Amino acid sequence: MSERHDEAERLSRPRLSRRALLSGGAVVAAAATSGAVVARASADDTSTAGRTVDPEGNSPRATAVEPFYGAHQAGVATAPQAHAAFVAFDLRSGSDRESVARLMRVLTDDARRITQGQPALADTEPHLAVLPARLTVTFGFGPGLFAATKTSDQRPESVAPLPAFGIDRLKERWTGGDLLVQICADDPLTVTHALRVLVKDARSFAKVRWTQRGFRRAAHSQQPHTTQRNVMGQLDGTVNPVAGTPDFDRAVWFAGEQEWLRGGTTLVLRRIRAEMETWDAADTVAKEFTIGRRLTDGAPLTGAREHDEPDLARLTPAGLPVISEYAHIRRAHVADPGARILRRVYNYDEGVSADGTADTGLLFASYQADIARQFIPIQQRLAEADLLNEWTTPIGSAVFAVPPGCGPKGWIGETLLS
Amino acid sequence: MSERHDEAERLSRPRLSRRALLSGGAVVAAAATSGAVVARASADDTSTAGRTVDPEGNSPRATAVEPFYGAHQAGVATAPQAHAAFVAFDLRSGSDRESVARLMRVLTDDARRITQGQPALADTEPHLAVLPARLTVTFGFGPGLFAATKTSDQRPESVAPLPAFGIDRLKERWTGGDLLVQICADDPLTVTHALRVLVKDARSFAKVRWTQRGFRRAAHSQQPHTTQRNVMGQLDGTVNPVAGTPDFDRAVWFAGEQEWLRGGTTLVLRRIRAEMETWDAADTVAKEFTIGRRLTDGAPLTGAREHDEPDLARLTPAGLPVISEYAHIRRAHVADPGARILRRVYNYDEGVSADGTADTGLLFASYQADIARQFIPIQQRLAEADLLNEWTTPIGSAVFAVPPGCGPKGWIGETLLS
Repeated sequence: MSERHDEAERLSRPRLSRRALLSGGAVVAAAATSGAVVARASADDTSTAGRTVDPEGNSPRATAVEPFYGAHQAGVATAPQAHAAFVAFDLRSGSDRESVARLMRVLTDDARRITQGQPALADTEPHLAVLPARLTVTFGFGPGLFAATKTSDQRPESVAPLPAFGIDRLKERWTGGDLLVQICADDPLTVTHALRVLVKDARSFAKVRWTQRGFRRAAHSQQPHTTQRNVMGQLDGTVNPVAGTPDFDRAVWFAGEQEWLRGGTTLVLRRIRAEMETWDAADTVAKEFTIGRRLTDGAPLTGAREHDEPDLARLTPAGLPVISEYAHIRRAHVADPGARILRRVYNYDEGVSADGTADTGLLFASYQADIARQFIPIQQRLAEADLLNEWTTPIGSAVFAVPPGCGPKGWIGETLLS
Repeated sequence: MSERHDEAERLSRPRLSRRALLSGGAVVAAAATSGAVVARASADDTSTAGRTVDPEGNSPRATAVEPFYGAHQAGVATAPQAHAAFVAFDLRSGSDRESVARLMRVLTDDARRITQGQPALADTEPHLAVLPARLTVTFGFGPGLFAATKTSDQRPESVAPLPAFGIDRLKERWTGGDLLVQICADDPLTVTHALRVLVKDARSFAKVRWTQRGFRRAAHSQQPHTTQRNVMGQLDGTVNPVAGTPDFDRAVWFAGEQEWLRGGTTLVLRRIRAEMETWDAADTVAKEFTIGRRLTDGAPLTGAREHDEPDLARLTPAGLPVISEYAHIRRAHVADPGARILRRVYNYDEGVSADGTADTGLLFASYQADIARQFIPIQQRLAEADLLNEWTTPIGSAVFAVPPGCGPKGWIGETLLS
């Protein structure tokens, strides 16, 4: 697709692209200061900068766009949107480097359009594309993709199925995958449309292995830097690297030997069932002892406010640790902020069995520069002895390398596959 | 539960109730003008009327409350919230009028609390109750409830399984039910918490038959009196009674011989699968011919704007009807505004098969004063000859009487069961 063709096409539907762009200016500008390459789209926006109400009365949240182009893919450092769909594909047999490169060119073209509020090429529901609501599309490569494209020598060793943990009860239907597409937006219908577009364009190359949908509090409830509660009622993600800080960059962006992945990251996606029956039977004291934090405000049991540093050494008058040896926050604790994982967690809620048991839990998406150095040691400590294991069960697991972003003439995966 | 007990309990957690009430003032006031009994809660609100920002920084949308008490149950005339869960129960064998009345007292108490942003009694996740986001809980009684409580003589005849339509492909797992609980809120986590609370309190009385979750555009995209698009990309619900008008009251609220149901309504919930594969293969001309409206703006093919009255008599130069004899809007057309149905439609999207087919469609919730007089004739005309049948398949169907609302000392269902 030539740039000239793109431009002609864009001009032929100025209303759609302009609408999406009007209130995206602020987002684009903010992204620019955080080091991302400024989206090409923002160039259109000069005359309307600062305008946040769209002529058809759509809200700024509905028309907000996240930049697509940049050193990193969007959807990682991006403030989590309210809704997500994760879809994993298995490449069809006979796939090779050329066919996967072709697939990634197509999907990149889709993603760059729909994230900016424009229909995909030959979009059969173009009117569903006009409210991007901070839509991001993020791609990840599983071990099977490296095998199919004969690039396994370029696969970081730990981009591989995780070691087996004693707590795991993994189900095939939520595990593995050659190619991940992560779709996030503040509007659930936007996610549905994006999922449809991307699946339709991928399916001649790959079969769908699984799809997982999740949600957080609605966008209107999401304050910047406020931690959300999960379905178990816990504040979830208090200790998270903060985008734009050096610690974040060190914790999240790949810096290993494989040059093609620089500016990328890795994703571990775990589906963790919440055992609500037994959790709901526990009292507040037991729950807080398990977590090591207060349920009311997330403060550590040794502190007064959510972000107070837990005092892991403090003892009760009886000489026992205030934060138990087996409390979740002690087992998950990582002293070096640059070695932490970035948690971008969604809830799932899939219905209720006849006896009233909820099928609910977390889509635990963890991004880190290095799975072996960051994710696995934490998971091992948790698997060994975390009181919370009593109430949570990993039932799905998948691991992906998340390539770096691309520029206007590039495509996601080009550093590995071109 | 005595009023004195309630009051003491309310005062013991002023922060929770006050927070929920602050921004609810406008909603309560609006409800009062539409004829509903003013919620008791609003009496607390005098000193803070007009305040819309809560002290903890939550948005007005997050803390907004819909009144629970009133002549009608909330969740029918209420502007549709962004997220919904419909859960149907089958009463346990041995249920009788007394046990069902007890169940309804318990569920009414849950609903009146959580809809006002307060935890339910013995709420195990009380911190998830504080952002009601316009939560409503609406109860409906299926044919089996009348049988179990020996009140079948009080059941309107058409509150019964619908006649079989040739287009139906009903599945047992989405069909029927003795008791419906409809949960709607602008925040998906609020829906999950409410679902958990209500299922836990119902399950010693009843088994869960099915749960169906759905969504519309995010709350921030919902303009008043703007029609939403569904997953097929159509503007869906253009011709809908408008709350607060005499036509609405005539179309929706029951006025038949059974006195206990006055102020109530009836609900038909159809699960309608969208056949996206063939729909996406149709071109715009075919889609617009099928619907009888333009896809861009929902205007009838004979008009210029969405709400223009379709001219069903207009002919093309060749002498054919502009709006086909078999177009959806002609088949669904009801001339008398007071005889129309109230559509309160949600989308569902449940994942993707290996070959890439989406499991998606509509939770078509239709409220009407009289199923036999309003819903069935429309459905018969559609089933006989609606071009849209090619692309939609009813796979679930359930019918309920929706009792009137109640006051602070009452409970939903009291007019039938007390």
